[in-house]
Formats: sequence, structure tokens, C-alpha cells
Amino acid sequence: MQGLMQDRPLLISNMIVHAAKFHGSREIVSRLVEGPIHTTNYAEVEYRSRKLAHAMAGFGIKHGDRVGTLAWNTFRHLEIWYAVSGMGSVCHTLNPRLFPDQIVYIANHAQDRLLFVDLTFLPLVETIIDRLTSVEAVILMSDRTHLPASSKIPNLMVYEDFLDQGSDDYAWPQFDETTASSLCYTSGTTGNPKGVLYSHRSTSIHSLACNSADALGIRSVDSVLPVVPMFHANAWSLPYGCAMTGSKMVMPGAAMDGKSIHELLESQQVTFTAAVPTVWLGLLQYLEAGNLGLSSLKRVVIGGSACPRSMIEAFEVKYGVDVFHAWGMTETSPLGTVGALKAGMEDWDLDKRLDAKVKQGRLIFGIDMKITGDDDKALPHDGKAFGNLKVRGPWVVGAYFKGDGGAILDDQGFFDTGDVATIDPDGFMQITDRAKDVIKSGGEWISSIEIENLTVGHPDVAEAAVIGIAHPKWDERPLLIIVPKSGRSPTKADLLAYLSDKIAKWWMPDDVVFVSEIPHTATGKIQKTTLRSQFANHKLAG
Amino acid sequence: MQGLMQDRPLLISNMIVHAAKFHGSREIVSRLVEGPIHTTNYAEVEYRSRKLAHAMAGFGIKHGDRVGTLAWNTFRHLEIWYAVSGMGSVCHTLNPRLFPDQIVYIANHAQDRLLFVDLTFLPLVETIIDRLTSVEAVILMSDRTHLPASSKIPNLMVYEDFLDQGSDDYAWPQFDETTASSLCYTSGTTGNPKGVLYSHRSTSIHSLACNSADALGIRSVDSVLPVVPMFHANAWSLPYGCAMTGSKMVMPGAAMDGKSIHELLESQQVTFTAAVPTVWLGLLQYLEAGNLGLSSLKRVVIGGSACPRSMIEAFEVKYGVDVFHAWGMTETSPLGTVGALKAGMEDWDLDKRLDAKVKQGRLIFGIDMKITGDDDKALPHDGKAFGNLKVRGPWVVGAYFKGDGGAILDDQGFFDTGDVATIDPDGFMQITDRAKDVIKSGGEWISSIEIENLTVGHPDVAEAAVIGIAHPKWDERPLLIIVPKSGRSPTKADLLAYLSDKIAKWWMPDDVVFVSEIPHTATGKIQKTTLRSQFANHKLAG
Repeated sequence: MQGLMQDRPLLISNMIVHAAKFHGSREIVSRLVEGPIHTTNYAEVEYRSRKLAHAMAGFGIKHGDRVGTLAWNTFRHLEIWYAVSGMGSVCHTLNPRLFPDQIVYIANHAQDRLLFVDLTFLPLVETIIDRLTSVEAVILMSDRTHLPASSKIPNLMVYEDFLDQGSDDYAWPQFDETTASSLCYTSGTTGNPKGVLYSHRSTSIHSLACNSADALGIRSVDSVLPVVPMFHANAWSLPYGCAMTGSKMVMPGAAMDGKSIHELLESQQVTFTAAVPTVWLGLLQYLEAGNLGLSSLKRVVIGGSACPRSMIEAFEVKYGVDVFHAWGMTETSPLGTVGALKAGMEDWDLDKRLDAKVKQGRLIFGIDMKITGDDDKALPHDGKAFGNLKVRGPWVVGAYFKGDGGAILDDQGFFDTGDVATIDPDGFMQITDRAKDVIKSGGEWISSIEIENLTVGHPDVAEAAVIGIAHPKWDERPLLIIVPKSGRSPTKADLLAYLSDKIAKWWMPDDVVFVSEIPHTATGKIQKTTLRSQFANHKLAG
Repeated sequence: MQGLMQDRPLLISNMIVHAAKFHGSREIVSRLVEGPIHTTNYAEVEYRSRKLAHAMAGFGIKHGDRVGTLAWNTFRHLEIWYAVSGMGSVCHTLNPRLFPDQIVYIANHAQDRLLFVDLTFLPLVETIIDRLTSVEAVILMSDRTHLPASSKIPNLMVYEDFLDQGSDDYAWPQFDETTASSLCYTSGTTGNPKGVLYSHRSTSIHSLACNSADALGIRSVDSVLPVVPMFHANAWSLPYGCAMTGSKMVMPGAAMDGKSIHELLESQQVTFTAAVPTVWLGLLQYLEAGNLGLSSLKRVVIGGSACPRSMIEAFEVKYGVDVFHAWGMTETSPLGTVGALKAGMEDWDLDKRLDAKVKQGRLIFGIDMKITGDDDKALPHDGKAFGNLKVRGPWVVGAYFKGDGGAILDDQGFFDTGDVATIDPDGFMQITDRAKDVIKSGGEWISSIEIENLTVGHPDVAEAAVIGIAHPKWDERPLLIIVPKSGRSPTKADLLAYLSDKIAKWWMPDDVVFVSEIPHTATGKIQKTTLRSQFANHKLAG
């Protein structure tokens, strides 16, 4: 028997319409790429989004067409985001930090018809425009005064003029909620990037779940600074969540250094913010150097890569800011877990609380998660067993765009995240490795990340990487690769002694090598593939 | 173009499975109808729900079949709730406070096949069992020691034995999310009650939205006391929201007097609770009489009928508890609005904050709302214009069960709530009347409720009702009906003088009458239909 409640689709346009109707005057403050601070509000953004949608329809953009952006977080990016999804087209946020070749591949693969570009990225687009096979027009996200006198880009248009061609008489169309809304490519370290095609349904359910009090828990009284870029997995749902609740938005534009972020935090009395650890490292260093404080900030969500324990401690103890570790990926919209403490934990001492907070967090209601071993059987939630982390649910990828990568779900519908993790009895998940980096020694698994995290605690170590080296008896054994701090010269014996009471004996690296630099990907992760080929012939000393 | 995220249904079984997997040991405490305090947890409730579902399947209960309950809030009611919906059948929570004739009508109309009954209601069921045409078995929600030696009810079974027939090997079935999950009848003051048939989809989206930080905002650290009964519009989503977040549940059973509620609040360190104003009046009187406090309670949600300003003030000023006024109805799952303050309002002085808090609150994201005049055009959100309150969205009724009442949506898909309301520029909605009680005088509307609320502020007045009396020139004019406080005898002149500086001149009642009692419905509302027929021939003095 069918229920008899209204059959109304979950559409992204509902979010900005709600914000405009019930929080119309709530501010959206942007640090523009052009320099100044700009203030608008939800009513204005909704109005301009409708005009922009109408202008794009006039250009010939149709339901399902892809529209690309190469842009920072500003009100104009927000308008494009709501206009494109709202009209039933697909908002494709390109990551400008990728290598130009990757950007070309991705834009062509997505068949982006329009490309909206911030001033910052005009030089980049000029170098690749000849190779963008589907882009029919590039629109500079600024006003006429910033349009360069000449450009290598044919038909370069300017945003404010383009938008003005549209009519506000445009009404948001209604369509099926499984319609594609946005597209984001994974920055795969191997092979070509693959596209994740979100729907209005997946985005709406994900955003509702993220707004629950124990996940991001944004409220209308919050002033929210999404430092995490909109091209980074939907900015962790914040541009949706803020509209749904009518919270103030503070958009940082291109400036993510400690000083600029601190200025916005204080001048806009930000209460909630989210970014990767690198940004917070910059902020904490800036605060430390200037002996500064944080007068309004209450909560910080940290994700993208593992957050060091010392960073959580600094925020909480020194600045009185509650830190939530979060985990997710492009394929999971992105949020899967958030580290809100459970009942009783608030009474734990600092060390024990940090032990919990340094984990990646608890599953947000709405999706399911399990860890499995090599035999594909679910492992216990005992905080010790670690296995392949798999997730399923309405905001988890079902297939990549255009079928790239083929069938990607197991027979129960779970997606393998490629992460290796533990889950403790309280439900806190902790990433112990990437599956391809885990070291398989004598049928048992060794976490490369855990050894790396412990090793960087040594006072002479600037950076550490651990990879598996082929071993005749054990299949693989760990090799520890060290970048010493400037002016320090630790020895192999020093490091092994340092680790000896911290890890199991059979986890102890068989050898330690010292290098001046460890290679990184465009997004700042250690490039273990490169390290593995670099040390492919390394002969283990032991 | 379709998005490529996973196509997984929103099912109610996901909630209890999530709670069991990730919050398994979190307590569910019940004051049993049998007397003692009982403690279980989510893992146990999920396990027993599965056994119960299997036992019902064994009895022959099929997908779509209705299963009735006449029960208080206890862990057993929670198990039935998850078992019935989880197996794809329809959980029909009957309101035991209705007149027996109405219960018979409703159970027969719903075609309930099984009826689960608390000990309290066994005498009631014995008096009506002969007239229940579809009920095949009655199951007493207790253990064998409480089964009466003899009963007029044929095949009376006992819950614990029935449950034990089921196997925990049962797996929750997967099915379409638009499948009916639960059924609740409106207590219409005119005509027969009508059924609202919720779906897994509507319930899931509603519960997600209610869990957002600005709505109910339940967190895993909360200890939640749902005083609002599960037969009262899904207990305002709390049994769902608590499982989704893993908060502790405290179930009050049959005891809702001030002393019993206070005992639970303190012994279970409750942080969040929800009920109708009558319950809170009892609690406040009990606190006052005993000079008691509230040591853990942080937030109270009040709905069902308008909450007096003095009650909000007492909770906030005297007991330090944040009060949220909420509005909804069976037809809206039920929550539509919750009165969380917006940015800046926390700095308002108490009086101004109470002005906002006494309103019914702001729209929860996910549904839409408008107020319309007689011409069906939308009225402005200026806090002054009042019109018919209409709502639409995925958790709003589309049609009543079995098509009762015919087509109930306007051409834009809005459902007319039957309430008359204003919406202010901040989005706060305030009910000014029921549409059928609004007094239409010379083409303008007069709010009967506003005059009533003002009149009960007079020190000699115990209760007040205002109805429209036919008038040759103005169509209708207000008649004020007063129950004086014991030992007081206010005059017509006193009351009109009291109102004279509080309402517009043309709102002033044309006459005042004094009675010893005002009639009420089974759910405690003023029975204006009875008053209107009682005073149909009243000749206005003016």
C-alpha cells in the first residue's frame, strides 16, 4: 500500500527559495577576487540566480547540459551554483589547483558548454582554451571594469552583463528529484579523474542529514565561513546547509592565509567554519605569532586529510573552539562521519577526549558503513580490527559519470572507499591507511599512516612516509622514509628506538632512509606511487 | 539527465538499525503501566522488533495490513512501532482518549487486523470488542503474570509470549519508500475522523528535517522525554529522531502528572522534552508548590495548542529552560514550524523575546507555507495581515485514507490547514484563529483567539471563549463568553473596559455572557460548535 502524503520532489531550488522567503535579508559577505569586501543577501542571490538561469537558457543551455566553474568561494559562485542546478542543468565545479592537462581532460570529458571563471584563473584558461573542445563561451565572474582590453579567449563575456540579459520573470522549473544537479571529479592519483554525478535527491538528503545537530548542526544564528572550496566536494554541503537554515555566509574568495582568514573570522563574527588542516595550521601559526585570539568562533570542522592531535588540542585548550573531525570523499557527497562526542565523553579528561576526537568520527544517520577483511566479511567494531571501509546510501556514488570504472558496488550495494579503517565500540571510525598503501606482512596488515603519525612526533623529523617493500618471506615489510628537520640528523637507531614502545614489534620498519624531500600530489598528499617506484629496488638492511 | 548516486530507499527500519549498530547500548527507560521503571537499549529494541515482526508475519500480517495500538509511550510501544512499519505493514496508533464510539469507527475504518493494548485500556477494549469488525486478535502489552484470568476478549494474547514465537533470524525487507508506514486519524470536531497515511519517505524526510539544529535539534548526548504520546501525530517525530541520533529515551507511560514527570526529569537527567501546554501547567504548579527546580532540563518544545506567554516566561526566567513553541497537525506529520530565535534576537529584552516566542515559530526547511485571503491570493509577511494558512511539501497530506474528504489540495498543491495566521517579516507565524471560528464582520476578519487570550489576562476570568453571532448589518459580531474565577463576579462593563485599550474598536465584543462551564472536546479544545448552537438565538445587547 502506498502512503498518501504529497508527492513533491526534493529540489535544490527549494533551498534558495526558502532562504529568500524566510531569511531574505540575511547577509552573504564575500572577499572578492577583485579585492573589496562585498555584501549581499539571500533574497538578492535568489533573484540574481533566477536572472542568470534565464540568461543561460537564452544562451541555449538545456536540462542536463554541463556548465563549468573555475572559481573561489564568492557570492557569484553561489549564484551560478543555484542557477545551474535550479534550472535542471549540471553545475560542474572544476578544481583550479589541478594540473592544466587534468583540467583540460576533465572539462572535455564533462563536455562543459559554458565556463565561468574568476579573474585569478583567466591566465590559466588562456593557456588551455584552444584545447577545450566543448566550451562555447567563457564568462568572467566580474563586472565590465575588470574585463581585459584583449584576451586570447574568443567571445569572452563578463558576468554582470551576461546576467543582466536574463529576466527575473523566470520561475524555477519542477522536475524529477533524481535529475543530475552537479558534477565533481575525483583527483585520482592513478588513472584519469572520474566524475561523480550528484542528483537533487542525493544533495537534498545529504544536506538535511549534514544539518542535523550532531553532524554540522548549522543554525540560523550562525555566521558560517566555508573555507573549504566549492570545487572541493560541494564545500562539504555548506552552501546548501546555510541556505536551508538562513545562516550568514562569509565567503573567503582567494585569500586563505592565516591573516586573511583571521580578519574575516573577527570582522564577520564567524561562529562556525570548515577547512582542511593546512588552512588551520596557517591560522594557528598566525594567531601564535601575533598573540591573537578568536572572539566569536565556536566550532571548527576539519576534514580532507587527518587532523593532527596537536591542532585539535590547540583549538580547544588555547582558543576555546570545539573541533569536529570529519571524513568523507567526493564519492560520498562528501560527508560520511563527524566526530561529535557521545554522552559521558564530555566528562573524560583531555587526553581521552583527544583520543576520541582524533578519530574520523561517527556515521551520520542516513548511510551505512562497514569494514571488511580480505575475505569480504564484516569485521567487529572493536577499535582494533582494521579493514576496507565500505559505505552505501542515498548520497553515496552508484556509478561514475559515463560508466568510467565499470561496476563499483559490491553485491550488497556497498562502495569501497579505498580507505582502511577501524570502528570502535562507540562507533568512532579511524582511518588507518589507504588500501593501496597498507602493508601486508605475513597475511597481517600494517598501517603505514599510523607509523608515519607516530614518527613525526620525533623532534628531529620534519616529514615521514612509510611504504611496503617486497620481502621474500613476509611478502612486504615497511620502509620508513624520513625528511629530517633542518639542521638535525637523526639516525636509524634513534628512530627505531623512538618507535619501539609505540608499535608492535612486527610493525617495526625493516629499514630507515633519509631524503631531502618527499613527493606530493597537487592536493598535498604524499605520492606513494612515486616513492614505491623510487625505492622499488631498495634492499632491506634487516 | 539522471544523477548517478545510489538508488536506496528511505526506510524506517534504517533508523532502528542505525541506532542498534552505532548506539546499541544507549538506554531506553520506561515507566511501565504495570508500575516499575524498566531499562532497555537500542540493540535490544531492534532485536525484539525483528522477532515481533517475524511473529506477526507468522500470524499472517502482510505488507500494507493495518496493526492498531491503544498504548502509552513505553519501550513495547516503540518495538511495535518499528516492527510494524519495518515489515512494510501500517502502524495505526489509536488515540485512547477519544470516545469509545470514535475508536470503534476508526479501528473499523482502518480495518486493523491486530490490536496491541496496554493494561490500562483492557476494560475499554472489553466494552467495544464486539463492535470491532476487523480485529482478529488483541495482544496485551505485558507479560503473562499480568494476563487476567478471564476476559471478555476472545483469543486475548500476551505480548511477551507472542514476541517469543518470532525468530531474530528475520531480516528487515527492502521496498519502495513511498510504501505506507503509519496511520493516524484526525480528531475532527465535525464529521467522522479522517486518516492520514504516512509513508516511509514522508516520515524519513520529516524526521531528518526535525533533527536539524534549528528545529528539534536532538543530539546523541541528549536525554529525551517524549511526553507527547505516540498516538498524537507520531509523538512529533521524537521516536524516530532519537533513534537516528542515538539519544537516550525516557518514556513516561501513563503518568503525566507534575510529580511523575518531575521524577523522571530528575532521575533520568532529561535535557529535552516535548508536550502540550496542559502537561507543563501541571509540572509548573508542582514545582511551584514544592519549591523545586530542574537540574538537567535545557529545552522544552511546546505545541498542540497555543502556549501561554506566562508559561514560556516561567520556564525561561525561573527555571532557566529554553522554550520552543511549535506548530503542526496530524496532516503535517506533524511539525511545520518551530520558534528558534534568529540572529540578533538573543540580545532583545525579555518582553520582546517573549513577543517572538509566543508565536508558533518559523517554517522548518523542506516544506512551503503561505497565508491567503478570501480571494486566495497570498498575503504579505508583515505580521499584521492574517489569512488561511496553507502548506505543501513531502511531509504534508496529499489525500485522506480511502479518499475521505475528496480532493484537498489547491491548484498549486497547497493543503489548507484550517488555521488562520499571520507571518511576520522574520518569518515567525502566529495562529490567530481556526478558520471556522474567525468572525467575519463587515468583510473584515476578527480573531476570536486573540480576544480570548487577552481576556484571560483579567484577574477575575478563569476561561473565555469568543464566537460570532449573526448580525443583520455586519454579518457577524463577537460574543464574549466568560467563566469567572471562583468567588469573583466581573461585570460586562469591567471586561469591555479591560479590553478597550488592547484591541481595535471594531473588534470589541457586542455582548458578554457569564457561564459556569465552557464545553471541551476530548482533546481539551473549546467546543465552539456547541457554543454556537447554544447561543444561536442570543440577541446582541448592543
